[in-house]
Amino acid sequence: MAVADDLRDWVDDGLTQPEHPTWALHEEGYDPRREAGVEARFTVANGFLGVRGARSVSRGPVWVSWLHGLNWASWPRTYVAGLFDTPNTIPPVPALVPGPDWLRVQLAMDGQPVMLRTGELLHHRRTLDLERGLLVTRWHHRDPDGRTIRLRALRLVSLAERALGLQVIELTVDGRPCEITLEALLESAGSGLEPMRLEPDVALWRTALSGKTVAVAHDARVRRDHTEVAPASIEPLRRRWAWRLVPGEPAIFTRLVALARGEVETADATAARARAALDRRRTQPWRGVLEAHAAAWGARWEASDVRIDGDEAAERALRFAVYQLNSAADPDDDTVSIGARALTGDAYLGHVFWDTEIYLLPFYTLTWPEAARALLMYRFHTLDGARRKAARLGYEGALYAWESAETGDEATPEEIVDPAGRSLKILCGLEEQHISADVAYAVWKYWEATGDDGFMEEAGAEIVLETARFWASRAVREDDGRFHIRRVIGPDEYHETIDDNAYTNVMAAWNLARGVEVADWLATHRPRTRRRLERALGLGRAELAEWRAVDSGLVTGFDPASGLFEQFQGYFGLEDVPRADFAGRDAPADVVLGRARTQASQILKQADVVALLALLPERFEAAVHRANFAYYEPRCGHGSSLSRGLHAVVAARLGDVAMAHSYFHATAATDLSETLAASAGGIRIAAQGALWQAAVLGMGGLRIDAEGLAIRPNLPAAWERVVFHARWRGRRVAVEAHREPPRVNLRLVEGPPCTVRVGERRVELEAGVPRTVALG
Amino acid sequence: MAVADDLRDWVDDGLTQPEHPTWALHEEGYDPRREAGVEARFTVANGFLGVRGARSVSRGPVWVSWLHGLNWASWPRTYVAGLFDTPNTIPPVPALVPGPDWLRVQLAMDGQPVMLRTGELLHHRRTLDLERGLLVTRWHHRDPDGRTIRLRALRLVSLAERALGLQVIELTVDGRPCEITLEALLESAGSGLEPMRLEPDVALWRTALSGKTVAVAHDARVRRDHTEVAPASIEPLRRRWAWRLVPGEPAIFTRLVALARGEVETADATAARARAALDRRRTQPWRGVLEAHAAAWGARWEASDVRIDGDEAAERALRFAVYQLNSAADPDDDTVSIGARALTGDAYLGHVFWDTEIYLLPFYTLTWPEAARALLMYRFHTLDGARRKAARLGYEGALYAWESAETGDEATPEEIVDPAGRSLKILCGLEEQHISADVAYAVWKYWEATGDDGFMEEAGAEIVLETARFWASRAVREDDGRFHIRRVIGPDEYHETIDDNAYTNVMAAWNLARGVEVADWLATHRPRTRRRLERALGLGRAELAEWRAVDSGLVTGFDPASGLFEQFQGYFGLEDVPRADFAGRDAPADVVLGRARTQASQILKQADVVALLALLPERFEAAVHRANFAYYEPRCGHGSSLSRGLHAVVAARLGDVAMAHSYFHATAATDLSETLAASAGGIRIAAQGALWQAAVLGMGGLRIDAEGLAIRPNLPAAWERVVFHARWRGRRVAVEAHREPPRVNLRLVEGPPCTVRVGERRVELEAGVPRTVALG
Repeated sequence: MAVADDLRDWVDDGLTQPEHPTWALHEEGYDPRREAGVEARFTVANGFLGVRGARSVSRGPVWVSWLHGLNWASWPRTYVAGLFDTPNTIPPVPALVPGPDWLRVQLAMDGQPVMLRTGELLHHRRTLDLERGLLVTRWHHRDPDGRTIRLRALRLVSLAERALGLQVIELTVDGRPCEITLEALLESAGSGLEPMRLEPDVALWRTALSGKTVAVAHDARVRRDHTEVAPASIEPLRRRWAWRLVPGEPAIFTRLVALARGEVETADATAARARAALDRRRTQPWRGVLEAHAAAWGARWEASDVRIDGDEAAERALRFAVYQLNSAADPDDDTVSIGARALTGDAYLGHVFWDTEIYLLPFYTLTWPEAARALLMYRFHTLDGARRKAARLGYEGALYAWESAETGDEATPEEIVDPAGRSLKILCGLEEQHISADVAYAVWKYWEATGDDGFMEEAGAEIVLETARFWASRAVREDDGRFHIRRVIGPDEYHETIDDNAYTNVMAAWNLARGVEVADWLATHRPRTRRRLERALGLGRAELAEWRAVDSGLVTGFDPASGLFEQFQGYFGLEDVPRADFAGRDAPADVVLGRARTQASQILKQADVVALLALLPERFEAAVHRANFAYYEPRCGHGSSLSRGLHAVVAARLGDVAMAHSYFHATAATDLSETLAASAGGIRIAAQGALWQAAVLGMGGLRIDAEGLAIRPNLPAAWERVVFHARWRGRRVAVEAHREPPRVNLRLVEGPPCTVRVGERRVELEAGVPRTVALG
Repeated sequence: MAVADDLRDWVDDGLTQPEHPTWALHEEGYDPRREAGVEARFTVANGFLGVRGARSVSRGPVWVSWLHGLNWASWPRTYVAGLFDTPNTIPPVPALVPGPDWLRVQLAMDGQPVMLRTGELLHHRRTLDLERGLLVTRWHHRDPDGRTIRLRALRLVSLAERALGLQVIELTVDGRPCEITLEALLESAGSGLEPMRLEPDVALWRTALSGKTVAVAHDARVRRDHTEVAPASIEPLRRRWAWRLVPGEPAIFTRLVALARGEVETADATAARARAALDRRRTQPWRGVLEAHAAAWGARWEASDVRIDGDEAAERALRFAVYQLNSAADPDDDTVSIGARALTGDAYLGHVFWDTEIYLLPFYTLTWPEAARALLMYRFHTLDGARRKAARLGYEGALYAWESAETGDEATPEEIVDPAGRSLKILCGLEEQHISADVAYAVWKYWEATGDDGFMEEAGAEIVLETARFWASRAVREDDGRFHIRRVIGPDEYHETIDDNAYTNVMAAWNLARGVEVADWLATHRPRTRRRLERALGLGRAELAEWRAVDSGLVTGFDPASGLFEQFQGYFGLEDVPRADFAGRDAPADVVLGRARTQASQILKQADVVALLALLPERFEAAVHRANFAYYEPRCGHGSSLSRGLHAVVAARLGDVAMAHSYFHATAATDLSETLAASAGGIRIAAQGALWQAAVLGMGGLRIDAEGLAIRPNLPAAWERVVFHARWRGRRVAVEAHREPPRVNLRLVEGPPCTVRVGERRVELEAGVPRTVALG
């Protein structure tokens, strides 16, 4: 059958599984208890659109009743990046609005609706094809009257053209012929969208308060044996076909959509943009869209795949992580960034945290600088929000939002009311100020790695200067003659309103030094920009001198005698709870021991001083790395999904490859373990970024600093070889690190010749000349 | 000012408060922690439409994110009776779909959106005008730039014509003139509705699976000083006006809507019906709609008001209860019934329980038989669902759904999955079978009170016969020669899968006896109907003989020696926990003691044997009443809002008027106490019905049985006089019971002469001749 052959290349299990065990994830059967987590895991996304891996055929509608009273079996959601509105909550904070669901299909056989829960599930399997960015579903179902139907379906949101979504479903009956009714819906019920204009081929919705629009242009067809079935009815949001399906003669339903996001004022233009995006592809068979998409994924994998010989589970987890990371960014939209759950779920409301700069940016900077630049430009576009926050709290410069949405204004709820009506204060939005240094750090590391002086001139310098200025106004010189930063929260959120957090202060000092450095660089290389910024920001030489003074005068809690940083003032005096009393439980330490005791103890939620070691390795001597990791690692409760990955990085760099390997797999389990409940609200994208860092920056030993590229592998016993690519200043370098005998193979894939440090050696690379460097 | 004068009669506080302290409820200020409960309490409804008392001006949009992550400050909802669909939940059960919100208004002053939470709330007061069925809001607000605005608003859904909703808002600025922008929205975001057709004056939505439609025809205007302001823009769901508002020159916004519910197949007709309902009123000033509505409320109060001299709190609580009861029913729609939270919230998903027949029907039967008939006809229309449930469980006849939605098929979820992924079995849908006898009971009491033989012939008899038949198939004759009903749940849901529950078995026997009785009545008075039903139901004489045998052979757990019913087999052997160990806590007994211990104890959740005393007082001797109440009352944990009201009824009848009074006020507190959290999902309408029963059937001592009307008051010390009306077989009787000296004044308001039993005396009543009967 021609129709079936068309699809076989794309959806048959054979292609994706036995030969490529690390290129696919599978979910067999249907378990409502696992479902919401499975849906997050099986998301297809392209940085503009994200579609959770929910079933689209014969699912029920989704809306929520007060106090639930219901349990949600499934949370089918399409997200559109940047689509924020402010719902009616305590307190009101912006949240990502669920977009229209363009995938819903209702089927009936001989007039009887096909329902997952009535009849018998003969076979149900979802496969996430990581290599080609597809979700493939196979479903074989027998209805209560004994009719059986087989579906093979795929969906994608195009990486080649981010506006596009494609759904293909092949239907087959066996046994006896049957009358099929297929309804294709565009659904926004239960979402936060109001219809604005519904035309036969373009639907336009808007948000209630923020005045954003979403247009969906759509084209859906049913084809049987090369003939198109005419629709039986056409409503704006619902199209119906009815035909007789005969055994051995499959039919194919295809739906191509194009989405556009806009503003109410320019609704016509938004609708026209969606229509134009669709029209460009409408005459093409769906295979064309699929092939362009698969080719774009191929290019991303070419640049970002990490292969690991000897540890298949690690390779699969890394491919899942890299799949999610490549799915999360959009280099063409620099007004949005990546939320804590990317576009895979609505926990944390789509808000952007330090996760993006510290956990995700290294991946983008080193494999996809175009995406990194767009993400950093989002911080530039939201600089005014950061200035407003600083001013509101009485400081100068820019204090970025701990949770950032569209404008960069602080979006952290200051208070949560629990179901019993008790109020809980959330202090992060006020006190977790290290975010400003984190953003500056990511800007700087991007600049170092790419040499993108144009970005620095246009945007990066202003971010670094304004954040440095914030720190200078934030630190206070006290009677001891030193500068202090009091009343903050560090990465370890178990301890609030603390003084002189080592992470915060060291990063602040670093930020101040970079402020001075970039001002000098501008003076030397871009004097006109320096003058423009001096005028715009009112920046004078006296202020730069002050920054230098604060940088050198900030207390950091470092004790040269022990080589230890004290995490914050008074930390060493807190109760030192033995690890056995809080670790290894299902619950985090603050639940095991209670919040009060945890706060009064040295137990930490996540990498704090250890994060400092991970971020600024060149700043500290080896002994300092060792002493601090040895002190803080056993005291960490890992109460955040961000924690273990950075521990893996630092452990690997310290040569403790067994511990690094263990932390690597613990990080890999974040969204790939059998217990899926915590993933229901979305994939923990920062943990995926940290997993990549553990493999490439930790075990792979890749480092980029002011001097350039350096590699010093730290392979665990199970890893025979790790292979990855890195981009650096217009070059792409392929790296293969072997464990036995220890060596590194290098190849300059593109770009001009360069020097790479491997271990203690310097290696000159030029295109087309592979180099092997023996180690130790 | 003409505009202001128009409104003053309706919204000024003066009218509703000081002279009529029991005719209004007030909520001062705005407390987000109270808000959801306040909204349920301040619902306006007419049995077809229910609108929660949420703020309509400048509220944010409502949609829900996975795992919330947000706290809902407000749950603005319009419900349309009978609008069910089945959302995508575990397990999938039908739920009332939130309808379109036709009240939302967004205001801006000089281009700045007016927001409750920015600026200063100078005054905010909502008043529920019980007498006229209005929600009146006064709001005085200063925005962050110092502009102030005053709003006086009212809303109603018409009791005169249930399709209609009216919203009136008067706007005034003081200080300086200002540019007002007012947007009037029709909103369905966050609801379970999809737009089907949006035209300038009629919007049509549909449900996803159940194929129901809702049409909203709407007409909105802004008037200033007798001139209409032309809209600045018109979209189907959003209309905007902009004008200059000058101090001393108020403007009035009015919006009249008409809603219709229908099916997708007849969408045009539904839209036309909404349009026609609106057109009938469109040319009339809004005062006409208001006056017709207020007149309809006047008529309902005439028939159902309960006055209490000496206990103002009791009178206010009763008026609130009677307000909610009159708001909940629609005599013109016999395809719907009243859910556990009526149309005031979506807890329990709009499902109909025994609450309706046992707790609400007495009010309707005795004050509003037209509404009672419609509610019972809903059970007739869902008889097939009850037959399906009986057949599915292997029984004959009709077993009504424990939770009933549109079709009468069982809608109780069989399993709930908690957030930790644990499954909890819900057995009520399988085991709480007394519902079938409860429905038959309500049918019978309605027939007794109204003499509506037409209803009995058309519908009631079939319900009584089919439920009797169920019990005959359900009871099993065992080796002891007696009939048993095993594996049930009685009203006391702390004890599951029990045998021979006294409530269930006595009600089943009563149901069987009524089955025989109605068959005899049909044979004598309606032989043609008897023959029709014999044919249709396959009902023969042998089956009736079997019913008699089961009736007389059913074990009831009654012990003639002690006069006690054993609540179920083995109950007396359970642990007898002292009352002090579980009562008087904030939490119910099963939380205080744990579920396992509660199940193994004699503690009961709610009236069970006591409910039997309340329902069938004539069946038991005074000593049996006393013995059972004395035994069970101290063992009841009142873990249900249904419990205390029936205890008040029975205590009053037993002459323990102090205890009755205490239970009365505890019942009144259900939705009127300061702690509102439990009302958030809606008013507990059954408790309101029980409150009315406590006042009229308990303290008022009204009883209707086969012999007619009887009155034997039991007034508590605080109640000097209680005044109420009762309808009985075409008559309306006004009753005044005085405490000192004890006497009853009677007046036949309408209908033919009749005899009323007062205490031990029989009094002949005829129209226009008041009678006073002195008591003991």
